[in-house]
Amino acid sequence: MTSVKAAVLTAYEQPLEIREYRALTEAGPGEALVRIELAGICGTDVHLWLGQLPVPLPVILGHETVGRIEVLGAGLEKDWRGAELRVGDRVAWASSIVCGECYYCRVKRQPTRCVARKAYGISYCANDHPHLRGGYAEQIHLRAGTAIFRIPDTTPSEAVIGAGCALTTAIHGVERCPVEWGDSVIVQGTGPVGLAAIAVAKQAGAANIIAIGGPPHRLELARKMGAGHVIDIAAMPSIEQRRKEAITLTGGYGADIVIECVGYPDAVNEGIELPRDGGRFLVLGQYANAGNISFNPHTITRKQLTVQGSWGFEPRHVDRALRMLEIPHWQHLFANEITARYPLAEANAALDTVKNWRAGKTVLIP
Amino acid sequence: MTSVKAAVLTAYEQPLEIREYRALTEAGPGEALVRIELAGICGTDVHLWLGQLPVPLPVILGHETVGRIEVLGAGLEKDWRGAELRVGDRVAWASSIVCGECYYCRVKRQPTRCVARKAYGISYCANDHPHLRGGYAEQIHLRAGTAIFRIPDTTPSEAVIGAGCALTTAIHGVERCPVEWGDSVIVQGTGPVGLAAIAVAKQAGAANIIAIGGPPHRLELARKMGAGHVIDIAAMPSIEQRRKEAITLTGGYGADIVIECVGYPDAVNEGIELPRDGGRFLVLGQYANAGNISFNPHTITRKQLTVQGSWGFEPRHVDRALRMLEIPHWQHLFANEITARYPLAEANAALDTVKNWRAGKTVLIP
Amino acid sequence: MTSVKAAVLTAYEQPLEIREYRALTEAGPGEALVRIELAGICGTDVHLWLGQLPVPLPVILGHETVGRIEVLGAGLEKDWRGAELRVGDRVAWASSIVCGECYYCRVKRQPTRCVARKAYGISYCANDHPHLRGGYAEQIHLRAGTAIFRIPDTTPSEAVIGAGCALTTAIHGVERCPVEWGDSVIVQGTGPVGLAAIAVAKQAGAANIIAIGGPPHRLELARKMGAGHVIDIAAMPSIEQRRKEAITLTGGYGADIVIECVGYPDAVNEGIELPRDGGRFLVLGQYANAGNISFNPHTITRKQLTVQGSWGFEPRHVDRALRMLEIPHWQHLFANEITARYPLAEANAALDTVKNWRAGKTVLIP
Amino acid sequence: MTSVKAAVLTAYEQPLEIREYRALTEAGPGEALVRIELAGICGTDVHLWLGQLPVPLPVILGHETVGRIEVLGAGLEKDWRGAELRVGDRVAWASSIVCGECYYCRVKRQPTRCVARKAYGISYCANDHPHLRGGYAEQIHLRAGTAIFRIPDTTPSEAVIGAGCALTTAIHGVERCPVEWGDSVIVQGTGPVGLAAIAVAKQAGAANIIAIGGPPHRLELARKMGAGHVIDIAAMPSIEQRRKEAITLTGGYGADIVIECVGYPDAVNEGIELPRDGGRFLVLGQYANAGNISFNPHTITRKQLTVQGSWGFEPRHVDRALRMLEIPHWQHLFANEITARYPLAEANAALDTVKNWRAGKTVLIP
Repeated sequence: MTSVKAAVLTAYEQPLEIREYRALTEAGPGEALVRIELAGICGTDVHLWLGQLPVPLPVILGHETVGRIEVLGAGLEKDWRGAELRVGDRVAWASSIVCGECYYCRVKRQPTRCVARKAYGISYCANDHPHLRGGYAEQIHLRAGTAIFRIPDTTPSEAVIGAGCALTTAIHGVERCPVEWGDSVIVQGTGPVGLAAIAVAKQAGAANIIAIGGPPHRLELARKMGAGHVIDIAAMPSIEQRRKEAITLTGGYGADIVIECVGYPDAVNEGIELPRDGGRFLVLGQYANAGNISFNPHTITRKQLTVQGSWGFEPRHVDRALRMLEIPHWQHLFANEITARYPLAEANAALDTVKNWRAGKTVLIP
Repeated sequence: MTSVKAAVLTAYEQPLEIREYRALTEAGPGEALVRIELAGICGTDVHLWLGQLPVPLPVILGHETVGRIEVLGAGLEKDWRGAELRVGDRVAWASSIVCGECYYCRVKRQPTRCVARKAYGISYCANDHPHLRGGYAEQIHLRAGTAIFRIPDTTPSEAVIGAGCALTTAIHGVERCPVEWGDSVIVQGTGPVGLAAIAVAKQAGAANIIAIGGPPHRLELARKMGAGHVIDIAAMPSIEQRRKEAITLTGGYGADIVIECVGYPDAVNEGIELPRDGGRFLVLGQYANAGNISFNPHTITRKQLTVQGSWGFEPRHVDRALRMLEIPHWQHLFANEITARYPLAEANAALDTVKNWRAGKTVLIP
Repeated sequence: MTSVKAAVLTAYEQPLEIREYRALTEAGPGEALVRIELAGICGTDVHLWLGQLPVPLPVILGHETVGRIEVLGAGLEKDWRGAELRVGDRVAWASSIVCGECYYCRVKRQPTRCVARKAYGISYCANDHPHLRGGYAEQIHLRAGTAIFRIPDTTPSEAVIGAGCALTTAIHGVERCPVEWGDSVIVQGTGPVGLAAIAVAKQAGAANIIAIGGPPHRLELARKMGAGHVIDIAAMPSIEQRRKEAITLTGGYGADIVIECVGYPDAVNEGIELPRDGGRFLVLGQYANAGNISFNPHTITRKQLTVQGSWGFEPRHVDRALRMLEIPHWQHLFANEITARYPLAEANAALDTVKNWRAGKTVLIP
Repeated sequence: MTSVKAAVLTAYEQPLEIREYRALTEAGPGEALVRIELAGICGTDVHLWLGQLPVPLPVILGHETVGRIEVLGAGLEKDWRGAELRVGDRVAWASSIVCGECYYCRVKRQPTRCVARKAYGISYCANDHPHLRGGYAEQIHLRAGTAIFRIPDTTPSEAVIGAGCALTTAIHGVERCPVEWGDSVIVQGTGPVGLAAIAVAKQAGAANIIAIGGPPHRLELARKMGAGHVIDIAAMPSIEQRRKEAITLTGGYGADIVIECVGYPDAVNEGIELPRDGGRFLVLGQYANAGNISFNPHTITRKQLTVQGSWGFEPRHVDRALRMLEIPHWQHLFANEITARYPLAEANAALDTVKNWRAGKTVLIP
């Protein structure tokens, strides 16, 4: 094969273009070429398409990817966990690379805030060599230093992409704001991040998980992931009524921990009233800057809250996610989150499905 | 003696009335009568006077108090720390009593959020028996269960009242949001809570403390407490300029921990930009509900912050404060915070001094 | 009824005597009388019988008890969690009462190390009024201040006693030495504490639990509780071989956390080699002083271990245990741990069954 | 210059040989050549000399070193903290390099337990190119990846070497087993690690520090570092008497935290009785395997202790140490720890001084 196809964002809010690039055949030291088998469409891709985060157009979108190794560069013999890597291996990788040397990487050990962090499918201009640095494509070129993970044979690719970066994001957030076994947990939002947060809370032994979200097919997934109660925001549009319901369902005082996975800033105002006094509030959904809200900071003092932010994830969260996905229960549930599949040529239809919340999880099969 | 005087809040925003009550001579089991020697005027007393927190008028104000034991009720033989208590002992006490039985006291161990918490000088109507339940008075009646502390002979009363509930509040806050040795710390506000927060941060080994506040006599105290740099809000009224200055003074990334001790809600917006990414923000000053601000929750996620609230304090924080005040360095500094002294009859002048920020710390000598 | 029977330890290593006491009919303020329905035989009772812990003979043994309230003293209207208490309610209670006032109760918040702690079935001489302070009896007198818990109707008494003080001990230990979700865990010992530790680790989301113990019927229970692998100490008597097996089963480096629930001091030497470097070792089984071992402290430094002790439990651990037992899965497993039931008159046979490890869990039905 | 001298351990328990090597003049990519100005003699060097840790003889000893950069390899433009590096800069460096890729480096974030860790002055055979990999020499060759730190101009080299690896070791240990402000602390041992532990505890705000050690000149240093009380083991040879004294000095219950910095395994038995119940015991001194003790593990359970190990240190602990040494108070104290200075030619006399505890801290001036 001498060329590969990719779906390229060339202008905001315009249809992605299917472009052809010369297929790569050589990898430098530590680099890898991967033939893509499955690529997830993430809600962030919609934000990128809308131009809400500045990126160096044109960009090949796609930061949730599974593929098979075609070429291994010199010295690349093991994956991030030390397992041997061979051509043909099925792999996933952390979407970001950090510098490992800056103030945040070294001194403060906050690598997700690395000043030089770059992400596949987001930070690389497709005009620049080697062009293929996004997941909506047949082939991808992985830089030296990418945290590559060999996927266990018993873990289906659909489980990995069904979980996507939502699971690693949730794992990182819950690491910073731990769910202890026996805790009551309220999860706001039932998109991929909310569903993953429910799964992580369940795995961590939460006794009582309440999901607030919609639409009904997502609430059904929430229940399967571990939510004991769901509150449908369409059926109960009053925030005050939802608050009463959630507080009642957590014994009258509120939850030990509330996880915001909505994205709209108003959700923070709704959520901050839901923990019990002395409880925790994990703000996981405000990844994009969606503007200001009218907010009363007295609530934080009076309720003696811990409000926690968390940004992206590190390779070790991919490690934890893949280990969680070795459990058949979670494999099955995350794989089943995928309800819409498109070939690469229909990338625009796939993006449209995500934009309009028409599926659980949408994927491209390049 | 057959009567005792007290300064009573009878109506909001009206002068306190000096009233006479029959002196108490008997204490029930576990109770104590204390002859008051020194009572602090706290900023909260101004809020109470303004009617910003509902209280059962008439109320004898005053929740920062030192006195000598006149009568010990049956069974009250030891102080909170187990030291023997005798008539004549000089004592202080935790201003609040909690039920020890509710959900917050027992199950969640958040006693400051006890559903039945009552505070001397705040929650007791002076019309109700035994009337004398506030510090702006010659005598006070302590309920059974009050956490009484015998003050070491080498600790002056002025050190205890100079520190006041500001120190215990700061100790509790820093317990929830720890300052580690070597941390850089920004303290917003140089009122009593801010000054106490600087002292606690210094005692905890902070390497670099920056105080933002005023007026100049308070900034001078801030330096003595341990601030290496002070930013005068009058001299630098631009929030953006202060932000740049504070960030520069903390090495270009912001502080490891920022402690808000201002009280105005806008301070939360100024403060939340001051921690480095992955840093901590302790919201200590929003004790009163002073209304909403326009706030961007994306900041919490993006900067990966821990935002922590803390409410009041527990007896063990009084214990820690008194132990800190055994150190001559702190005794001296906190005692010297007191720059205005009034007899009980001039309680209104004392309150006025605090209202108008005219002193470091103001006290009544009943 | 004018008399009640009790099984009394009158001399070490001698058969318990069945004695009759006058049935109590009145309870003082805050006290309660309970008609006992089920009493567990704990391994500690064997230690008491052997005289390995000094107790004020004669003593009515029994500190794991469920019964129904016969009389409620004045003021005792709610259980520890605030639920209404009525005559006829089925209840359990924390076996220990602490003073709430000493250095450990107050200042250091280590109530299990209260200097005045007393336990039902252990610390009360049966010759002293009101005599009935142990569980091997038809009736028990609960002191004011006992942490009583109304048992939910859906939770069988056999689940509560099957779990016994082993579960609360394990919950306390794991609180001090947390199992995080995804951790690999080795549990040494498959007696009641070991089985409970497996259950708690499973509930907390451990990914990989290995039990080392025996005999086979206990290993079968260990599997049901959540152990993915069991190592039979009879089948593999070599410590070195067991070490290799356990290390291999945890990926070659050892477990994230090892929980010692054996009781023999040599188990500490076996266990301390089983965590990975930087791992945790919870020493839960050394409740009795069973003497010295030859030990190399270099291991702690070299392996960079956290070695954690934990003593008894607090009322809030009973609360957590009862909440865990609301889950049908655990109800079923803990109730099924009971495989031997005796009437009170056969208390000696019951004790003998425990002494000789002939059952999962042994109970008296008075 | 065409040759450099080095003091080489060629056979255990034999005098070091002064050998000459060809001076290096070129550094590969990321490497550096440093002209050594000051080298500390560490107690570990005595253990190496005695053959208690296997090393690839011949070895140039010395892992505490300050020097000036002679040659910077390609790409080495910044120090670990991001400060610009230039020829002539005065620098120190972390003595160990880790692989950054193994299970301990990556997955478990315990880099001091890296499976491929190598240390200057310990792990490099002087026969192997480039020979100069120890501090007892005029020149050293630093590998790419060494964590180099530019020393601030205001920090004297004697402060850095006076603190040595003892300070970084203590900082790491206290990070794992935190001293909170107000804690009472007992430090066992007044060698360099003990003195550094006292300094760190003091900086962290310990209220009450008790040092157990000797000889008198070291106890004097202990006082200067921050110990409020010292117990001279020569004056009080009875362990039981020392225990009583230490417990009395910490209020009758023991210290909040005990830090063992002795090295003899018996110290662990003495130390484990010194924390209050629920306290912490940091085992920092058992770096070498000095054999077994008769030990009762019941103590850990009964006293509900946290016993913590800690091994070596990471680059970020060097960062913290250098920041601590920017404080004039500590600069002065650590520089003054140095009481014996030798030229390189007298390396054997220097080692002898350390072997026989004749000085505070001993250094070579090559």
